[in-house]
Amino acid sequence: MNYQPTPDDKFSFGLWTVGWLGRDPFGEATRTPLDPVEAVQRLAELGAYGITFHDDDLIPFGTPHAERQAHVKRFRQALDSTGMTVPMATTNLFSHPVFKDGAFTANDRDVRRYALRKTMRNIDLAAELGARTYVAWGGREGAESGAAKDVRAALDRMKEAFDFLAQYVTEQGYDLRFAIEPKPNEPRGDILLPTVGHALAFIDRLERPELFGVNPEVGHEQMAGLNFPHGIAQAMWSGKLIHLDLNGQSGIKYDQDLRFGAGDLRAAFWTVDLLESGGYEGPRHFDFKPPRTEDYDGVWASAAGCMRNYLVLRERAAAFRADPAVQEALRAARLDQLARPTLGPGETPAQLLADTTAFEEFDVDAAAQRGMAFERLDQLAMDHLLRA
Amino acid sequence: MNYQPTPDDKFSFGLWTVGWLGRDPFGEATRTPLDPVEAVQRLAELGAYGITFHDDDLIPFGTPHAERQAHVKRFRQALDSTGMTVPMATTNLFSHPVFKDGAFTANDRDVRRYALRKTMRNIDLAAELGARTYVAWGGREGAESGAAKDVRAALDRMKEAFDFLAQYVTEQGYDLRFAIEPKPNEPRGDILLPTVGHALAFIDRLERPELFGVNPEVGHEQMAGLNFPHGIAQAMWSGKLIHLDLNGQSGIKYDQDLRFGAGDLRAAFWTVDLLESGGYEGPRHFDFKPPRTEDYDGVWASAAGCMRNYLVLRERAAAFRADPAVQEALRAARLDQLARPTLGPGETPAQLLADTTAFEEFDVDAAAQRGMAFERLDQLAMDHLLRA
Amino acid sequence: MNYQPTPDDKFSFGLWTVGWLGRDPFGEATRTPLDPVEAVQRLAELGAYGITFHDDDLIPFGTPHAERQAHVKRFRQALDSTGMTVPMATTNLFSHPVFKDGAFTANDRDVRRYALRKTMRNIDLAAELGARTYVAWGGREGAESGAAKDVRAALDRMKEAFDFLAQYVTEQGYDLRFAIEPKPNEPRGDILLPTVGHALAFIDRLERPELFGVNPEVGHEQMAGLNFPHGIAQAMWSGKLIHLDLNGQSGIKYDQDLRFGAGDLRAAFWTVDLLESGGYEGPRHFDFKPPRTEDYDGVWASAAGCMRNYLVLRERAAAFRADPAVQEALRAARLDQLARPTLGPGETPAQLLADTTAFEEFDVDAAAQRGMAFERLDQLAMDHLLRA
Amino acid sequence: MNYQPTPDDKFSFGLWTVGWLGRDPFGEATRTPLDPVEAVQRLAELGAYGITFHDDDLIPFGTPHAERQAHVKRFRQALDSTGMTVPMATTNLFSHPVFKDGAFTANDRDVRRYALRKTMRNIDLAAELGARTYVAWGGREGAESGAAKDVRAALDRMKEAFDFLAQYVTEQGYDLRFAIEPKPNEPRGDILLPTVGHALAFIDRLERPELFGVNPEVGHEQMAGLNFPHGIAQAMWSGKLIHLDLNGQSGIKYDQDLRFGAGDLRAAFWTVDLLESGGYEGPRHFDFKPPRTEDYDGVWASAAGCMRNYLVLRERAAAFRADPAVQEALRAARLDQLARPTLGPGETPAQLLADTTAFEEFDVDAAAQRGMAFERLDQLAMDHLLRA
Repeated sequence: MNYQPTPDDKFSFGLWTVGWLGRDPFGEATRTPLDPVEAVQRLAELGAYGITFHDDDLIPFGTPHAERQAHVKRFRQALDSTGMTVPMATTNLFSHPVFKDGAFTANDRDVRRYALRKTMRNIDLAAELGARTYVAWGGREGAESGAAKDVRAALDRMKEAFDFLAQYVTEQGYDLRFAIEPKPNEPRGDILLPTVGHALAFIDRLERPELFGVNPEVGHEQMAGLNFPHGIAQAMWSGKLIHLDLNGQSGIKYDQDLRFGAGDLRAAFWTVDLLESGGYEGPRHFDFKPPRTEDYDGVWASAAGCMRNYLVLRERAAAFRADPAVQEALRAARLDQLARPTLGPGETPAQLLADTTAFEEFDVDAAAQRGMAFERLDQLAMDHLLRA
Repeated sequence: MNYQPTPDDKFSFGLWTVGWLGRDPFGEATRTPLDPVEAVQRLAELGAYGITFHDDDLIPFGTPHAERQAHVKRFRQALDSTGMTVPMATTNLFSHPVFKDGAFTANDRDVRRYALRKTMRNIDLAAELGARTYVAWGGREGAESGAAKDVRAALDRMKEAFDFLAQYVTEQGYDLRFAIEPKPNEPRGDILLPTVGHALAFIDRLERPELFGVNPEVGHEQMAGLNFPHGIAQAMWSGKLIHLDLNGQSGIKYDQDLRFGAGDLRAAFWTVDLLESGGYEGPRHFDFKPPRTEDYDGVWASAAGCMRNYLVLRERAAAFRADPAVQEALRAARLDQLARPTLGPGETPAQLLADTTAFEEFDVDAAAQRGMAFERLDQLAMDHLLRA
Repeated sequence: MNYQPTPDDKFSFGLWTVGWLGRDPFGEATRTPLDPVEAVQRLAELGAYGITFHDDDLIPFGTPHAERQAHVKRFRQALDSTGMTVPMATTNLFSHPVFKDGAFTANDRDVRRYALRKTMRNIDLAAELGARTYVAWGGREGAESGAAKDVRAALDRMKEAFDFLAQYVTEQGYDLRFAIEPKPNEPRGDILLPTVGHALAFIDRLERPELFGVNPEVGHEQMAGLNFPHGIAQAMWSGKLIHLDLNGQSGIKYDQDLRFGAGDLRAAFWTVDLLESGGYEGPRHFDFKPPRTEDYDGVWASAAGCMRNYLVLRERAAAFRADPAVQEALRAARLDQLARPTLGPGETPAQLLADTTAFEEFDVDAAAQRGMAFERLDQLAMDHLLRA
Repeated sequence: MNYQPTPDDKFSFGLWTVGWLGRDPFGEATRTPLDPVEAVQRLAELGAYGITFHDDDLIPFGTPHAERQAHVKRFRQALDSTGMTVPMATTNLFSHPVFKDGAFTANDRDVRRYALRKTMRNIDLAAELGARTYVAWGGREGAESGAAKDVRAALDRMKEAFDFLAQYVTEQGYDLRFAIEPKPNEPRGDILLPTVGHALAFIDRLERPELFGVNPEVGHEQMAGLNFPHGIAQAMWSGKLIHLDLNGQSGIKYDQDLRFGAGDLRAAFWTVDLLESGGYEGPRHFDFKPPRTEDYDGVWASAAGCMRNYLVLRERAAAFRADPAVQEALRAARLDQLARPTLGPGETPAQLLADTTAFEEFDVDAAAQRGMAFERLDQLAMDHLLRA
């Protein structure tokens, strides 16, 4: 079996992933800076089709206006020469100390206005480079203590910001949708819109919800102990899964950003199964951090591993779904019944009340004794995952 | 200071709380059953104004139809003689083994139909007893393994059930709204609609969203490591906080259902502060389990403690908000600025782009140096909480 | 590849595992009781070599003395006819309400004395049936609130109990060692000796530490977010891994007791790798609960899955260790250097101080740049795990 | 009530606490460096008695040998002029990239030797400045992937390092004991010696265990969901609580290092109660990070808050213990019985077996019905904590 990725697999990476220098809360950088052009070239060689960026990844914060274009030009040349695309871009609203209390929901009004401007500027660049998705991770929108943030006022400000940016994109005629990325905590004690669910509910209250979706990250949901495939399934069900961040996390702890496939392997399997069978057509975007123990050989090995693991899991998920024994086990577990409506076509409350087989004559104890046959089904999944 | 509750405080308790017998996954019941009539009387004496129930709490599962009314009649007499109300009711869709794979999303279609009927029957009783809120906790709607539940199909079934029940309530002319209660896990490995956010987003996709809100429980959100006051703030902001379950939880672990005030005391303080200042007018409903170490003296001490702790925290929160030093500290932390819109009235993208003070002339480094003064504010909160 | 277990694999199961009826905190039993004799027979057929029990699993609590022997006799006959062994036994000190505040550390002294007697009685039976290990899980030794338990006094009582039981075993001449099983919480809010580390440290303070070891359970350590293979490695390093409980857990939440291989698959792989390569010679004991969704077909499928998964992982771990590419990768990651002492033979502090290459001339920046090559190594492990 | 700290309260702070610049995984420093001399002066003014340091806090990494003494001299003068002491010192074995894979257990042998030398050098300085405790936090001793660290070999290296350092201290005649500080994870995926228990067990296997104790940190144990007062109680029971780090943490997530009293307030109360009533005589050392939202006014407010909160909680704990109603409630909860041995003086197994009141005549059901009265006791504790 060949697990060599190709552009058709739609694998993309953030510039900040392979470019992460390894600085963490307790230690200094372990790697020297990586030229974005080299990142483009190496990822293209490895088989990726796209690269994504924060404004400051591509153009260092504080670069004079006159020098911006030089950075963009070199980057665009690298894209052109490799055929790499920019499916997504995003704003860094968290690194500079001015954002220490947030960006769109900072208590300081001038910081909020500055954050909007910084975002607008990069939206222009994103559109220029052909991105179709603009991710918004509000990593600093939150608090460590109770009185420091009036959450309802902050959500007003968040809505104001996104409504305004949607107006801007609309006025500019950009073919760009926003993908809100939830996270429960870190770097703030508690972050607003902490899960996929909170983000979906927030979007429903915006002026132009059709321009918004979510960008779930594997590790972010798992940091709240939530089931990642379940989360993206609800996002799909809501028509809102427009992008996602694949990586690895070992349970509820600090944000690990392991390569995809590391951490919770079983969740990774079901994630790939769902993406492949569920009609997701967006990029398979990796948002990971090569461990700071690694030099650049390790960085590229890690990036290659993300893609390889996706392909291995895709193969296993396909074999699982195609196996007649699995299909029989799914029927034994009555997944077919779950797909059927509970009610008959047009069945009214009065009609259900009149159906005595549903209640008065229903043998609840007999029904209770039917085994669900889930263990056999799950063991088949494990056998396919491990090719046993 | 007097912390004696009165009906004006709108404290309510579930029959299943003081009536919990202490059976847990590793041990047998430690208390003998409590007559619902005694529960009503004792809670009334302690100062509560309301009592709530699952169908099976009031009328044991399997009671012949002919005997139902006798249970209801005794209960109603207890309500009448004490002046207690029934603000809320709910369905037990989790104890009987027939619900081992769920109710509205069970793979077995006949179980789903039975669950609807069981719910309709108790909705009738809830309406008869004057309840205005009908809680739906889907504790068994979930899975332990990946293939056992197609989450998108399950959400279809969940939506089908709630749309149907809303139709029923509408047709019957009941003055009743549904409150969906999220929980991340236990008793299922992962439960659908795991957080307040997921439930809010689900409601937005129902046919009659105006008949639905959420019923957040302190411990359920905390089992996902989420900030409970933040969660209910988003529910309030969404106009969907119509009921809630107050109790205590010590972090991410099994569902503890400690009395309100136990567990995370600081979260309890901010919860009360938000409920009292944020316009919440529903019941203060306690959904806790008196520890199985306790006899009935301990049960009533525990119930009294829930209410006492709420009143103590209400007093402290009021003093905090009234303190001029706090108001000054809130200004120092620029909460007043957070309440102001980021944009001027009608300000357009073009206008913001034209405001050079927002970006080109904004001294980002100077702005970054302004301290947020959150520590002083939080210490004032702590001083008020502890009355130090 | 054949994954059919045989007695040489030393797989054992608790009677309470396949015999679990499915009662959980929110629901009734979903299965009818299983005759211990049938459990022995079925497990033997599946390829297990041993069965273990709590006193009350084999002889229902409260059985009159005269009837005890009948239960034991039937069980022994089943063992004899199948060739099954009893490698371990343990005491149920948690189900009966008398243990609601603990057993060896209950505040009530008469409960503590009763717990000792109950334990002594079952130790006699364990010895009679040939068990070599006596597990002690103090599931109720803990508290939900701060003043309810003086932890230092409780540890005094715990030590008193174990010293006494060790004296009893010694006096009786039983060839039996105790294995203390840690757990962080559930059913108590916090349990004493919450992790492998706490249990090891406790053992060191007993009168006869040589008679004690630990019985780590996969899920129990993972409920504290701890790395299970790391925990058993420290137990092995301490010479104290004498038994263990294999099962599955999906992160920090309630105790799931999934079948082995479910939950954290990667941890399961490293666990098997360590057991097989690290000289562990005890039983591979499964302490899981077949989900309550299952009927008995599912129960046996689940039990078979535990063994199958162990054998699959054993095969993969062996292939990993035997692969020359892995051995090269281990050297690249300098595992060989980790195995070498840091100091020279007999090297003194003065000598190290005199070695200028160690500090004064050590090029710390050059050393910092060496990549550790862990990602390549871990990807090889993943490839072997998945047989990719 | 006056909550003004004095040196008699033995409050100490790490230089790195008030000196933390606010750099986190997602953002740059928000504060300018703090001169250690100013730290000493300001903390003295606030009422602290001691200051502690990593080598690199006091003398920047890479300072030429000739300049070391100038740093030390200025610091010593500040100590002398303020009367501040240095109760503890420690080594920074985590910030420089050379330690990316650990220090005493780094796979690279030369890094391990360098780490020993770096530690020895600072031990000399610690002794010179009068420290009695030398803390060892092995923050980088761990791994993110399974094969990268052979845990048993790593524990061999860890033991080798500590045995060697203990030999050095002994030979030098320093009056210094080592305090090992556990942490479960961050910055490594899993850290060796993850909890107080693991560290205690490790110490028992050293050559000179009498020179070692533990330095538990509030947040580190809470990051594993463990009960901090329980952990230090076991350390006290083992005679090994020689130092501790007080701070705050809001549950299982990244390491927050909130000021003491923030986070889990109830755990803070029981911690102070135990330290004050349990004979702990060491420093009350604060290891926190003033949030990066704060300027230096906020830093000092935060430091003052740590001490104030300790004093408030000390007052409340004392009132709790002195209250006759509490004493009565403790008796009602049978804490007095827990303090009594379970066995009579010299009682043998044979004698217990002969005591029919212990088993044959013990009315287990009657005993089971006794309530433990813990809820009333805990409510009294809450009332004292809140002064209600």
